[in-house]
Amino acid sequence: MSKRYLKTITREEGVKRILENVSPIDDEEYLPTYQCRGRVTTRPVYALSSNPPFICSAMDGYAVSFEGTLEADVTRPVILDKETEAFAVNTGDPMPRTFDAVIMREDVEEAGSHITIRKPAYLWQNVRMVGEDIIEGDMLVPTNHRIRAFDIGMLLSGGVKALFVKRRPTCLIVPTGKELVDLYKEPVKEVEHNRLIDFNSYTLLVLAEEMGFQASQSGIICSKDALSTLLEKAAKNYDVVLVNAGSSAGSEDYTEDVISELGTLVFHGVSMMPGKPAMFGIVKGTPVFGIPGYPVSAVISFKAFLEPLYERLSDTLLLRRRTRCITAYKIPSRIGVEEIVRVNLLKYKGIYHAFPLPKGASVFSSMARADGLITIPEHIEGYDEGEEIDCDLMVQPEALDKRIHIVGSHDLCLDIMRDMMKSRHPDTDLTSSHVGSLSGIIAVKKGVADLCTTHILDESGKIYNIPVLLKYIPDRPWSLIHIARRLQGLLVSKGNPKGIRDITDLGRNDILFVNRQSGSGTRILLDTLLNEKGIRKGSIRGYDREESTHTAVGILVKEGIVDAGIGIYPISKVFSLDFIPLIEEDYDLLVTEEFMADTRFTRLMGLIRSPEFKERLEGIGGYNTKETGKIKYVNK
Amino acid sequence: MSKRYLKTITREEGVKRILENVSPIDDEEYLPTYQCRGRVTTRPVYALSSNPPFICSAMDGYAVSFEGTLEADVTRPVILDKETEAFAVNTGDPMPRTFDAVIMREDVEEAGSHITIRKPAYLWQNVRMVGEDIIEGDMLVPTNHRIRAFDIGMLLSGGVKALFVKRRPTCLIVPTGKELVDLYKEPVKEVEHNRLIDFNSYTLLVLAEEMGFQASQSGIICSKDALSTLLEKAAKNYDVVLVNAGSSAGSEDYTEDVISELGTLVFHGVSMMPGKPAMFGIVKGTPVFGIPGYPVSAVISFKAFLEPLYERLSDTLLLRRRTRCITAYKIPSRIGVEEIVRVNLLKYKGIYHAFPLPKGASVFSSMARADGLITIPEHIEGYDEGEEIDCDLMVQPEALDKRIHIVGSHDLCLDIMRDMMKSRHPDTDLTSSHVGSLSGIIAVKKGVADLCTTHILDESGKIYNIPVLLKYIPDRPWSLIHIARRLQGLLVSKGNPKGIRDITDLGRNDILFVNRQSGSGTRILLDTLLNEKGIRKGSIRGYDREESTHTAVGILVKEGIVDAGIGIYPISKVFSLDFIPLIEEDYDLLVTEEFMADTRFTRLMGLIRSPEFKERLEGIGGYNTKETGKIKYVNK
Repeated sequence: MSKRYLKTITREEGVKRILENVSPIDDEEYLPTYQCRGRVTTRPVYALSSNPPFICSAMDGYAVSFEGTLEADVTRPVILDKETEAFAVNTGDPMPRTFDAVIMREDVEEAGSHITIRKPAYLWQNVRMVGEDIIEGDMLVPTNHRIRAFDIGMLLSGGVKALFVKRRPTCLIVPTGKELVDLYKEPVKEVEHNRLIDFNSYTLLVLAEEMGFQASQSGIICSKDALSTLLEKAAKNYDVVLVNAGSSAGSEDYTEDVISELGTLVFHGVSMMPGKPAMFGIVKGTPVFGIPGYPVSAVISFKAFLEPLYERLSDTLLLRRRTRCITAYKIPSRIGVEEIVRVNLLKYKGIYHAFPLPKGASVFSSMARADGLITIPEHIEGYDEGEEIDCDLMVQPEALDKRIHIVGSHDLCLDIMRDMMKSRHPDTDLTSSHVGSLSGIIAVKKGVADLCTTHILDESGKIYNIPVLLKYIPDRPWSLIHIARRLQGLLVSKGNPKGIRDITDLGRNDILFVNRQSGSGTRILLDTLLNEKGIRKGSIRGYDREESTHTAVGILVKEGIVDAGIGIYPISKVFSLDFIPLIEEDYDLLVTEEFMADTRFTRLMGLIRSPEFKERLEGIGGYNTKETGKIKYVNK
Repeated sequence: MSKRYLKTITREEGVKRILENVSPIDDEEYLPTYQCRGRVTTRPVYALSSNPPFICSAMDGYAVSFEGTLEADVTRPVILDKETEAFAVNTGDPMPRTFDAVIMREDVEEAGSHITIRKPAYLWQNVRMVGEDIIEGDMLVPTNHRIRAFDIGMLLSGGVKALFVKRRPTCLIVPTGKELVDLYKEPVKEVEHNRLIDFNSYTLLVLAEEMGFQASQSGIICSKDALSTLLEKAAKNYDVVLVNAGSSAGSEDYTEDVISELGTLVFHGVSMMPGKPAMFGIVKGTPVFGIPGYPVSAVISFKAFLEPLYERLSDTLLLRRRTRCITAYKIPSRIGVEEIVRVNLLKYKGIYHAFPLPKGASVFSSMARADGLITIPEHIEGYDEGEEIDCDLMVQPEALDKRIHIVGSHDLCLDIMRDMMKSRHPDTDLTSSHVGSLSGIIAVKKGVADLCTTHILDESGKIYNIPVLLKYIPDRPWSLIHIARRLQGLLVSKGNPKGIRDITDLGRNDILFVNRQSGSGTRILLDTLLNEKGIRKGSIRGYDREESTHTAVGILVKEGIVDAGIGIYPISKVFSLDFIPLIEEDYDLLVTEEFMADTRFTRLMGLIRSPEFKERLEGIGGYNTKETGKIKYVNK
């Protein structure tokens, strides 16, 4: 293990060392103006011609000499000859030399070879002066200006056909690791045995392009020698090289050695999370990064270090979008480590509330599902609930404002709702936080959410949702909408090899079970059923192992990691499992009275009550949609 | 003239009619995932494989069976055989089937064929479960989702190599008009005689690409028949056609007739300014726009109508960036017309102040120089000074926050300062509003600006700037920095054909003069000199014709439109004019005490005092830089 890796530095210090080691690119290119959008000038650009380049008419009408019109009056019109005294012009036409005013077509009476006017013109009336817009020699843009669409128009109008701009920084992404497979080069089934899809290098490629790099990707490197050969060459041909993975402490982590042998290692290890194993060095004057292998760590350290580096190389500022938000829950963090947390943002009464997503560096999908990133500095132990903090946005705030966010219990129908919503109303997205029924109800009670899916059986074992809602949210008006009845049961391997008949078998010594998290309706159902049958929780192997979605339980059963789990019927179909039915339960939607007036809720109800929604649920199976869309209860 | 053109509709009504006539594109393309950034899905996308696809190690270390480690203790270590009881794994390696925990390398003592551990492992310690991130069959993104970089990573990690996305909308831009010249097809000098550079269609091309269209450009169309032939064909091959110009009332404006002959005209004329002559129709099911010819009108109506159209065609939301701002001046407007005004934004004490730019639809450069657009609705007579309103941003707010804004008197050195600032500090731009010395001083007095360039002579005709500043801003601390002494004089044609000797000649009958705007230092100087010599203002032909920059005066003299103007020496060099010196004056910079502590001011002073600045001024000529950078006066 590297000694340097133990001496971590802060992100801030890391950025400082990078900037100390890198200078702006000073090569320039001479490009046609219309191809320069987003490019940065290397010199000031001056107008080569004036705009307009001559005195011209600003209107469609007749050019005249104003002195010849001074006598015109409503009662005593002036008549002008079309050959000698008035000359038809369109907007932009050059003015005949001796003429100095234009009368609009609308103000003229035409009659054969003459026009009649009833109002005098004044000097330079409706005439555009030469250089009114741009004067030859004007500095149109300075050095280091990032060209926008409007600049292109202005430059062309000043006769500038081409200009000098900075060369785009180039960047090579080098995936390393024998376990990796490139989906575009090998068949997918390879993956199923023992190899992992290399999606990091494609993600980094797209992120680098988005940032402004001209980015490319090498093949997958599987040995230290190959990396060494490649890096030596790449350092000459690229402005930045990113070696992905091989920066941790594994037996195959040779990136540090290669950088040290070919050049100078500047740092290895950063007190941030995710992203700790990041590494930086200089090889033949070129910055080289060791980007951690865990996908979330990879993109977080890419953002942290490549953004300032890009700005330095290109002499430009990147766009960073921020908003203020309130933490919806407490977010703990360790002192001494800067932590970057993915969050969903829910706008509630004009204020964004941040709901933290899972922290694991391996769960890349949470990066795609996040709306933003919040940073917990190293000197504090996290944020309390209700703190106002900054959030770096990963989505358009406009999209957030129009979104529907549902908290509570997970069900496959949430995906169907999302797909239908985006199909019917492209501007309205639907996201869901699977915190379980009870946590969802508490979020609504606390006033940070308007919609919650729930399936909690009351203590009598008879009534779903209404009793628990009346207990938790008695004094706020809300309604309860029925989504569907659904079958809950035991999920067991195909063919039921262990011969499980009902929940009493869960106590058997040869059965390994997987549970749902506490607060979830399914967990409450299991506990109610165990109670009824008099089965001790302690007797069930795996009772303490918790998963937070039905699908996570399903896959553990499918893979034979556990023998049984509890879940809804459709999961058994998705994973080809056997299903032992336990109960049919109500899966309902809680909505606050305020939100019922919102257009987004009207849209949501519209789709829940549509025949398509019922058909798609029935297509999956295990749903009873007889009363789908019915208002079950209104609490005033 | 078109009858329909007289029946204008509102912009809102125009957008409504466009959306009624256009449906979303439903063609799809099947593209490799990594090429889909910014594209929009046409179907929900499901994971084809789980991630990770197998149970794997989450750490570099040794895979073990947790049951075999339970006895381990600091004093009674457990020794495991490397062949049978412990198996070296790197992060991501698949777990050997019978093993169920990983011990980190750091927690192991290695000794030949054995490892020693002093702490028990627990079940699934440091192990990533199959599907921890993504489960086969998960809906990864719904229909109508715009793919971002992170989505690409997620899709690839779920085994999705390619997906169905909406075809990009296509758009053809058709420039029309015999007066136009394409800079890339004809030599520039053609322009000087009687033709205008076609920069509109390039600007629209780049704007359309930026919006998301696949945009192309036709050649310049010069007749009604040619337009008719082209449009008939283009309507079949493009999603949108934009005919630029030919939408007004000129003799060559045949766009309306062509649309009506080939299809249906929906509207012509919108009660907005700029952008009034906009036109919309349907030809063979394809939307066709007549975009006005004045460049500012062109881009404003493009924005107003193409943005909602693009959103409809592509089923996506465009990013619109807004901020609140305070009007720095009164901005009048006519009832019955929605007016869109270009503004510069100046952040002062955390609040943006909007400074309106010239309103003319022909001054396109003001579009490039603007920071944003404000909209004055048709039912009000403009905004008062100090009103809080919305502003559509055309620049990054981050860039605005770091910018230096100078109000006051115009001088060529402002361009040099801007270029030097952007060269040395790429993140700091410098903009200037040429409102004249006195208006600038009043802006500082009102507290909406920190920096003002000024050259106002006191009534005694002896002292520059200090007396007027003490009069207008007596009770606020400020300093006055000397930029340079510069020569003011009369600008006359090369060779001085009218034999002008000094300002007494301005009263001559055969001399046409051009003046500077009132409140400008140069105008005050002229009036002072006329007073001294006892010359009546009324005796000077052109005394009332005002221009607001030295360069604008210079070009009028150069073009022979006037015989003389008053201005600074460098202008005579730029335009090859003769120069009759009148006086050497102080051009100074007023700065508020608060702003002196700002880093941006330190940077500005750094460059004013640099040898490079003096050299560049002297390179132009007519500047005396002996005391450049000196603090002339401090008002406490």
